[in-house]
Amino acid sequence: MITSPAQLRDEIRAANWTGPTAGMLRGYQQANFVAVPEAHAFDFLLFCVRNPQVCPVIAVTAPGDPWVNLDSGTADVRTDIPRYRVWKSGELVEEPVEVSKYWAGDMVGFLLGCSHTFEGPLADAGYTVRQHASPAPPVYITNRQTVSAGKIHGPLAVSMRSFPAGQVAGIVQLTARYPTGHGSPIHIGDPSGLGITDLLAPDFGPTPEIPDGEVPMFWACGVTPQLVLPRLGMHTLITHYPGHMFVFDNKPVPEH
Amino acid sequence: MITSPAQLRDEIRAANWTGPTAGMLRGYQQANFVAVPEAHAFDFLLFCVRNPQVCPVIAVTAPGDPWVNLDSGTADVRTDIPRYRVWKSGELVEEPVEVSKYWAGDMVGFLLGCSHTFEGPLADAGYTVRQHASPAPPVYITNRQTVSAGKIHGPLAVSMRSFPAGQVAGIVQLTARYPTGHGSPIHIGDPSGLGITDLLAPDFGPTPEIPDGEVPMFWACGVTPQLVLPRLGMHTLITHYPGHMFVFDNKPVPEH
Repeated sequence: MITSPAQLRDEIRAANWTGPTAGMLRGYQQANFVAVPEAHAFDFLLFCVRNPQVCPVIAVTAPGDPWVNLDSGTADVRTDIPRYRVWKSGELVEEPVEVSKYWAGDMVGFLLGCSHTFEGPLADAGYTVRQHASPAPPVYITNRQTVSAGKIHGPLAVSMRSFPAGQVAGIVQLTARYPTGHGSPIHIGDPSGLGITDLLAPDFGPTPEIPDGEVPMFWACGVTPQLVLPRLGMHTLITHYPGHMFVFDNKPVPEH
Repeated sequence: MITSPAQLRDEIRAANWTGPTAGMLRGYQQANFVAVPEAHAFDFLLFCVRNPQVCPVIAVTAPGDPWVNLDSGTADVRTDIPRYRVWKSGELVEEPVEVSKYWAGDMVGFLLGCSHTFEGPLADAGYTVRQHASPAPPVYITNRQTVSAGKIHGPLAVSMRSFPAGQVAGIVQLTARYPTGHGSPIHIGDPSGLGITDLLAPDFGPTPEIPDGEVPMFWACGVTPQLVLPRLGMHTLITHYPGHMFVFDNKPVPEH
């Protein structure tokens, strides 16, 4: 029985847990992971600053340094995430459970807020995330462009959860209070407004079932860096594997 | 009579206006300016991300590029600020009205929100900023440290305005809605809590007069980069001259 983020990271580091973190340790801050060579770090940090709902920055490691200071001690971004994706020169080469051998001396790691973060507060407020979207929601590539930074540009990815029409306003207000969970939805309703032609054919994740009377709600998604960064052909690019996140020691304090 | 930010920038570019912008064009977003060589740009952007109340990022120029896109056209950060400060290898060398000759091909410019931004909304809400603090408030170096980033570390500077005790709560709430104006105060009352031993001896700006019954309120201040960056000895460092700011075309939308 895993009862704390520190214990979960211990189990992950020992490779005793290699599955998704979605739905685990409800309420704790979960994070997307991206690591790029130092030569690309300024552009990527600027991309995060210019797209704060897509990439809310929580922590950044020093160049070459895999350590993150947490309330309970120090975490190692090379080993403390259950599964990774690794690109070399833009080609996906492996999806390993730790990345020590890929961690070059110039890598800079970014931990970026994730929408799993607001699923606990949604449940506490009495909202039910449909089974098809829990723990991992379907994800779509949209026709909306991110704000570019240096050589980094490309489309926005969104996650989707559907809710009864009468709950939509309350869910907007609740999620808006969690900027490190991507904040409020960026689009509600007709998916064609995002260039999504078939809601039943997501680009990643499960096929949704949307009952009559439910409204699809779309949030900016931390998978976006995995779409826009590989094309840069950097010598090494590392991300988390979707749904397999870094878990912080804290629960985010909701903004008023 | 200057009636728009674009007109003001034209007058500044022509060197017809070289004075402070504090108090001008009430309500428009004003900004601190910092330019560093590209080799320091990641550390400084990370410093801004880690100290968002000190350095709220509004715009960042591409390396070597002095242009900023605005609603009314394009601004040039080398000429569109009334007065600058320039350091070479950590030494203050000039306080000129334009910096074209110092703009090396690797400079990256940052425009960072400024507390002049909330003086209009304060006035609109019926609060009076005392004459000694308007247009430019006194500024103090505190004993509080900023969050470091790479080689950048050092003390926090704060601006001070005093208000009647009965107005303090309302002013906290109003300024909190303007994150690009440094947001809410970081300290209210006894200045010794910030290591300030004599409120009548500010490090920069006018000597305040604080009547009985007024409470000093302290906001994070955009002068901070001018304290922490020169010690790095970069080949060129450029900032605005205190009180002489960049003025954007927009008025910030208050957060709820």
